[in-house]
This record gives sequence, structure tokens and C-alpha cells, in this order.
Amino acid sequence: MSTIDSARPQLKIRSVALDTGRENVVVISRRSRALRPEVFSGFSRVELRCNSRTLLATLLITDDDALVGPDEIGLSQPALRRFAEPAGTFATVSPATPPDSLEAVRAKIRGETLSDQAISAVIDDLAHYRYSDMEIAAFLIGSASFMTSGELLALTRAMANAGTQLKWPEPVVVDKHCIGGIPGNRTSMVVVPIVAAHGLTIPKTSSRAITSPAGTADTMEVLARVNVGAEEMKSIVAACNGCVIWGGHVNLSPADDILISVERPLSLDTREQMVASILSKKLAAGSTHLLLDLPVGPTAKLSSGAEAMRLRKLFEFVGDRFGLNVEVITTDGRQPIGNGIGPVLEARDVMAVLGNEPGAPADLREKSLRLAAHLLEYDPKLRGGAGYQRARELLDSGAALKQMQKIIDAQGPTTSRNELGDLAFDVKAGRDGIVSAIDCLRLNRLARTAGAPINKGAGIRLFKKIGDRVDQGEPLYRVFTCDPSEHDLAVAAAAADHGYGFADEPNGHQR
Amino acid sequence: MSTIDSARPQLKIRSVALDTGRENVVVISRRSRALRPEVFSGFSRVELRCNSRTLLATLLITDDDALVGPDEIGLSQPALRRFAEPAGTFATVSPATPPDSLEAVRAKIRGETLSDQAISAVIDDLAHYRYSDMEIAAFLIGSASFMTSGELLALTRAMANAGTQLKWPEPVVVDKHCIGGIPGNRTSMVVVPIVAAHGLTIPKTSSRAITSPAGTADTMEVLARVNVGAEEMKSIVAACNGCVIWGGHVNLSPADDILISVERPLSLDTREQMVASILSKKLAAGSTHLLLDLPVGPTAKLSSGAEAMRLRKLFEFVGDRFGLNVEVITTDGRQPIGNGIGPVLEARDVMAVLGNEPGAPADLREKSLRLAAHLLEYDPKLRGGAGYQRARELLDSGAALKQMQKIIDAQGPTTSRNELGDLAFDVKAGRDGIVSAIDCLRLNRLARTAGAPINKGAGIRLFKKIGDRVDQGEPLYRVFTCDPSEHDLAVAAAAADHGYGFADEPNGHQR
Repeated sequence: MSTIDSARPQLKIRSVALDTGRENVVVISRRSRALRPEVFSGFSRVELRCNSRTLLATLLITDDDALVGPDEIGLSQPALRRFAEPAGTFATVSPATPPDSLEAVRAKIRGETLSDQAISAVIDDLAHYRYSDMEIAAFLIGSASFMTSGELLALTRAMANAGTQLKWPEPVVVDKHCIGGIPGNRTSMVVVPIVAAHGLTIPKTSSRAITSPAGTADTMEVLARVNVGAEEMKSIVAACNGCVIWGGHVNLSPADDILISVERPLSLDTREQMVASILSKKLAAGSTHLLLDLPVGPTAKLSSGAEAMRLRKLFEFVGDRFGLNVEVITTDGRQPIGNGIGPVLEARDVMAVLGNEPGAPADLREKSLRLAAHLLEYDPKLRGGAGYQRARELLDSGAALKQMQKIIDAQGPTTSRNELGDLAFDVKAGRDGIVSAIDCLRLNRLARTAGAPINKGAGIRLFKKIGDRVDQGEPLYRVFTCDPSEHDLAVAAAAADHGYGFADEPNGHQR
Repeated sequence: MSTIDSARPQLKIRSVALDTGRENVVVISRRSRALRPEVFSGFSRVELRCNSRTLLATLLITDDDALVGPDEIGLSQPALRRFAEPAGTFATVSPATPPDSLEAVRAKIRGETLSDQAISAVIDDLAHYRYSDMEIAAFLIGSASFMTSGELLALTRAMANAGTQLKWPEPVVVDKHCIGGIPGNRTSMVVVPIVAAHGLTIPKTSSRAITSPAGTADTMEVLARVNVGAEEMKSIVAACNGCVIWGGHVNLSPADDILISVERPLSLDTREQMVASILSKKLAAGSTHLLLDLPVGPTAKLSSGAEAMRLRKLFEFVGDRFGLNVEVITTDGRQPIGNGIGPVLEARDVMAVLGNEPGAPADLREKSLRLAAHLLEYDPKLRGGAGYQRARELLDSGAALKQMQKIIDAQGPTTSRNELGDLAFDVKAGRDGIVSAIDCLRLNRLARTAGAPINKGAGIRLFKKIGDRVDQGEPLYRVFTCDPSEHDLAVAAAAADHGYGFADEPNGHQR
């Protein structure tokens, strides 16, 4: 191989200002001496070498000398950062030898069952950016047709081992997780201060929105800094018993972040992938007790109790094998929880509940109390069945609010802009009736069209929920945007479908 | 939708000099007003609109105003050609709505069986460049786990209908096809003139190399122009009874070309995909009788007779359903056929066989006669069993050579450079012995390293075949290159593994 390498021309590394998402991309001139057209073509995979470093990347070929000259090789941002050699150094480029673990992916596609070692090799290559997006898709799709319980365990273990692993001095470390899909629903930010005020350890890592208008990390960022590393996280939790930070910064499961970035555009969402994704992160985070919230509703991720049951069994099975105490509850997923959708509006809901304000959304308060009650029961010192009562005490007394302020102070001030959008319009009922349905998918999409989560002040404030009576012309909700073009797009989107369904007569769900 | 569109900023189309393979790629400035970061990110899919035209493409984001300014949108070459709007016109860009047919792909991944309509919709979207590479991979992999015979028929039909369809006045239109993998093996260029000289119609479309050192189209191009369109092809066949042209120019199965471009990097090769790929092209080409050559050998695509049998049954099943008379023969795939590997060397082998030259490779002659014999038997006027005798008459008499020259004249002169590479080195035996094995994969790769098929004069001339006796230091083959760096790479590659195996004693296969 060294003879071959010495025959390859050296190319000077330069940075190219192309954002290529997560994938490593390099650019070579069509006139480059290193470009051997019989083995390279646009979008093929190449291997870059410099000293002992190697990088696998997707190739673009250019005819534009201003972008990349014949003696140069251009690296897009993620590739340059990962290769960790400065611009100006020399590297060779050769056709990439695909990672050996791809043979396991092909075996999986052929219908074979993979060994623990094979799965671990796939996840290792994947977490080190050696797979192209297409190869990642091949693994996901090959695994989507079937996955044995042994494979699921191996996948969860490999993903948990691929990144940072947190350890805590306390014997009981609790966590909660919702599988998502419900607008608003910012229960973690109420539950964490209640549980932490009680004295249990709850080091909550949360995600940013990928396809939704806000993740817990986006909403918490309205109140405090969330880009907190593992060491700093430990001192915050030591001081406050809890935190609400962005998990991406702690690098808990890099393989999962990569898999998700390919699952989403393909809308691949299998139960096994979901279980491995969630539980690997919780294992890496050092949790001992996990409460899982599975909302069920016509426009939620789970549309029936039977579906939720199958998923519950899978979570319990894997949790048990890893000694993680998993409790799964199903919740009402027919409509948004709370009145706000989008980071600023959701943060206001959370603070209203913690502050026991008169207008605070009752559904967010009740659901948060219920979840906190489950978590508090994990405290051996608490009398069985006393969890709900204790949670309500901590909330009503202001202890939870005080704990939240302590956590916010510990995480430090946020740097993002947090005003509510100043361009707003109301969406009104086209008829008299009773609200009978609210389309969660539709409202999520509308809030994104309005600019959330990038514009934290964009979003939706709901005036009506299921069971409420409305008169024709009465506002159903108000949409906030920060930008005239987003305003226009949101007006058009809401006019096309406002997401509400109505019934003629009260249907018994009236609040 | 029109309200939404009118709210989107117009971007001026410009060409960007990026070769992105087959995939449509557009580039937008990060400072563009049209870039809505909450819905767009690098490598996400976007939809371009101008007048009534739309184009789905993968997005790159740039910070380099020289490449694409804030008011512009850059289109890479295939995207610009397909969008068919000139640079300078204005277009809007929006997040792409994935093609509806992707729902069928997801259903297939879930393990469902697809209807004819669903498969036809997938192939239609795919042939119109509406799928990303990742989405194509999803379809291929979803189909790789299982495909019912009904799905295979629907896929073959949809692929055959997606491009040009040729019709011929003659009742019998014959064709031959080899599944590939054997270096050299340029039988079509001997068979076509024999069969055409007899008077049967044999309009042969052939492929260019993708992963091999030469396709029949690459080798024929040494002798004549092969970029011939459908209409011109018809007049050549009317005059000569046959032709050997590049199928890609006739656009017989655009969906197949796209599927292959994704199968190769993933090394996905299922029997069903192979059958649909080959038979869809033959159906579109208007063949009535097809002879299929399946080479079997340790380094061939098929390594056992049992494997070849399964594939044969599948070809026969699908051929029968479409009224295509398919005959399948297995051939010796243990080693290269002919002495040359690479376009120029293979073309010399072909002309030596047609010219009955003393040094002509006997294996290429014999295999071609055998294949031609099968095809000639499709002539109702020929007495059963007389095919081989007739083929040999046509070859030995010089009638086949004369027919080949007529075909070459009709297709017109080639424009590619056709000298044999002037940098050569010999690879020598490291021991005395009998050649017992030749690694087809290894020699294919070595010939590509030497520069074939881009440099038509690069390649390998074999001096020894299986069963030949060699003394230590005697040359096994000579490698030709056109370029010093390719020479160095080929020397290193041959030194690492020359691809020959030896036995101590004659094993009975001696020639």
C-alpha cells in the first residue's frame, strides 16, 4: 500500500464554504492529477490520508478553479473539522475501501441475523463517520424488515457504548422521556424542578427539535443556557439535584444522532430503532429509573392502545436486560398539552404552572404532577402511594419554582433572543360547534412554518381545546411570527387547513 | 399553494461547475432570503419551480458569494440540463414534498407486497429523477429482502415501459446477453456479424463499463462510433441486419441505469434485480429471442451450477410471461475469455477471430461459435442442429468479417484514441508449475488500475491460461498503461497480488 500511496500526487488541503449537512464531502478539480476518472466519479466515496489520519468522504468534482484548483483538495466544514489537519497541509486521495462492517449490512439485507460483534462494528464505523448516508440508510432499512431480540440488545449496547458515559454517586438516578409528537407537552421542565426539590437526582438531557417546532432543549434555552458539557453538568446536578440541558453537547449517543439524521428524511420509524435510540441514551446517561410517556391519539405517534402495548413490552424487555428500571405509562395524545406551541410560548406555560398563576394551563399542570408522582415513588424513603400528594405540595408551596430558579442560575443566562413574535394573526372558527379534534401534526407544521424553533418567539397560542364550545368567528388560536414572509406563509398554511374539527353537540369531553 | 409560492423570494438561476454524479444538486447562499433554516439544511431535498416546471434536488448551502450569491440559486450540470430553464431566469425554491410513491417504498420495507400500480409509480418517479440516492437505496434494499413473482413481473414491465421502445418489422429479432464478470469475453462482437451475415436481425445494444475494465460498447468504440440514436440504429439494422451500439444513447431503460448507479456502490446484487434489469432492456429493445450466457466459476458472478440453475428458472419464468423466448446456457467462467483485457486489446482479439488469424484466441472463437449456433437455430428456415456448422462456415469463409466491416462502416468512424498504451511491464511467474486458477476479479481490478476503460489502450495481454505450464520467471501477462502514474500504481497492484494460482502437476486441463 505504501508504494501505491507514494505514487499518488499530494494535494493541498483548503476549506470550501459548502454546508453539506453531517456528511463528509471533499471537492477536487476535474483537472487534478489525483483524479483518476476510471475510479472516481461525482458522489463516489474517497479516502483522504495525511500522516496517519484517514477520512472517508463523498467526492464532488468541480471545473471551477476559484473553488478548488488542480493541486488542491477542498474540504467542507464537517470534513475539515473531523480530519483535524489545517488548511495548507498535503494529503493524498484514493478510492475508499468500504468499511469491513458493510459486509454485515449486506448480510442483514439478505435476511441473516447479526452477531453482537458485527453490530458493534457497524455502530463503531457509523459513529466515526465512516458510513455514507446511503450506507446508513442500508443498515436502517435492512434492520427495519426484522430484528431479533438479541440484535436489539446488541444494538442498544453498542449505541450506549459509542459516546460519553455518565456516572453518578447516587444509587437512584431518575429520568423521564416522552416519545414525542404532541405539540407543547413541556412536562419535563415542570417535573425536573419538582423531583429535584424533593431531593432525588434527575440529570435531564433533552433534545432540540428536528421535525417539531420545539424540543425541550429549545424551550429551556429561552430561560437558561443549555449547551453544557459533561463535567459542568455534574457540578450543576451536585448543586441542584437536577438540570435541563441539551444532550447533543454531552455527546451521549453519537451513533443515534447519525441514525436519526437519516431516518427522518426517509420517515423510517421502527419500534426497535426507537427503543434502541431512547434506551441507549438513558444507559449512557447513567439513569437507574426511567419513566416513559407514550401519548396515544389519532394524530399522535401511537394511534391505539394495542400499539402502545407492543412498544411498552419492548421497552420493558430491553430495560430489564440492562438492569434499567423502566416504567411505561400511556397518556392522552389527542391534542396539544398546554396552550403554547413554540419555545417562548411553551416556556411561558411552564413558568405559569410553576408559579401557580391563575391562567396556567391545567392540563400541563395535571400531567406534570402525574409524571412527577411516578418518579417520586422511586424514592425508597417515601411511603408507597404518597408520590402525587408530595408532588402537589412541592408545586403549590413554590418549592418547585424556587428549585427551577436555582437550576436556571446554575446553567447560566441564555444568549438567544426570546421576545414573542410581533407579527400575529388569529385563526377563527368557521362555524358554531364543539371542538372535537385537533390535528397535532398540522399544528406542529404550522408552528414551524411560522418560524419555530429557529425564531424562538414564533409559534401558536391556543384559545380552544377539545370539548370547548365555539361560536362562528371566535378565535381558535393566534399565530406569532417574527418575519413578514414567514407571516405570509403561515397565513396561507392556516387558511389551507387550520387543523380543528368540530361536532354539533357536546360530546361529553367538555372541560 | 399559489399564495405560498407568491410569498417565496425569486432566485436567479446560475450554473455551478460541480459534478454531482447523476443526482440533482442545487446550491443556495446561507444569506439567501429564500433559505428558511427551520426547514432547510445541507443535503435536504428541495423543489425548484419556474413556470410549470419543477425539479427535485438535494441542497447544498454555501457561504461563498463567488460561487452563489444571496439572490441566486446554483444548479449543477445534470440539474441545469433537466430543469431546462436557462441561467438568468428566476425560480422559487421550497422544501420538497417527497414523491407519493415513497409510501410504497416504506410499505415494502415494512414487508408488504406491492401492487402493479404502486411499482409502476415508483419506477415512473425514479426515471424522472424525483428520488434521491437514499430513496433509491431504500427501494432497492426494501426489495432485496423478498420480492414476489408478481412484483418481479410488475417491476420488469414498469422498467421496460419507462424509456424508448423499439419495434422491428421482422418476426424474429434475436439478441444475446452475458451477465458479465469475466474479463475479455467479447463474444457479442463475433456473434453479431456471424448472425447478421446469415440474415437474422440482431440489433445489439451494449453497455459501457461501470466497475469492469471494458463493456462491449467501450470495445466496439475502438472500431466504430457507438453513440447512435434509435432512428439511426433502425437504418443501420435495415442495411446490415445488425449493429453493436451503446444502449445508454438509445435510453432503453432509464430507470435501470439509475438503479444500477446506486446498486453498485452498495454492492447490492439480487437475482430479482438482475432479471428485471436485463429483461426490461430486452423487452424495450423489441427482441423476440434471447440467449443468456451465465458464466460459472470461483471468481465469476455465479460460483455454482445450483446458483446458475436458480437464476435460469427466474429468467425463464419472466421471459415466458412476456412472450420473450429465453434460452439460458451456462459457460466456463473460471478464467478470462480471449487474451486481451481492456478495449484496444479486446478489439484486437475480436478482429483476429473474425479474420481467422493464426494467433487468434481459440477460446473466444469456440465460445462465440457456440453462442452463434444457438442463435442461428432460431431461424425457422435452418435445419435443426445445423446452427454450429452454419456459424463456422460464415466465420471461416470471411463472411462474418465482411459483415463486421459493413456494420463498422454503417456506424461510422470512431473519434476516440485507440493506440495501445506505450508503457508496459511483464508480470512473471514466481515458481515453476501449471496454472491452476486465474482470479477474474483481480485481473479486472488491475486493468482498471492500469487505466481501462478511460484509456482505451490500457489493459492486460495474457500469455498463460489455466492448464498452461510455466517456468519460474516466465511472463504470465503484460500490463499496458498510457500514463506514468497509472504505470506505477499498476506495478504496485500487480506486485501485491498477480491473480494467478499454480499447481505442481498437470491437472488434465492442459491445452
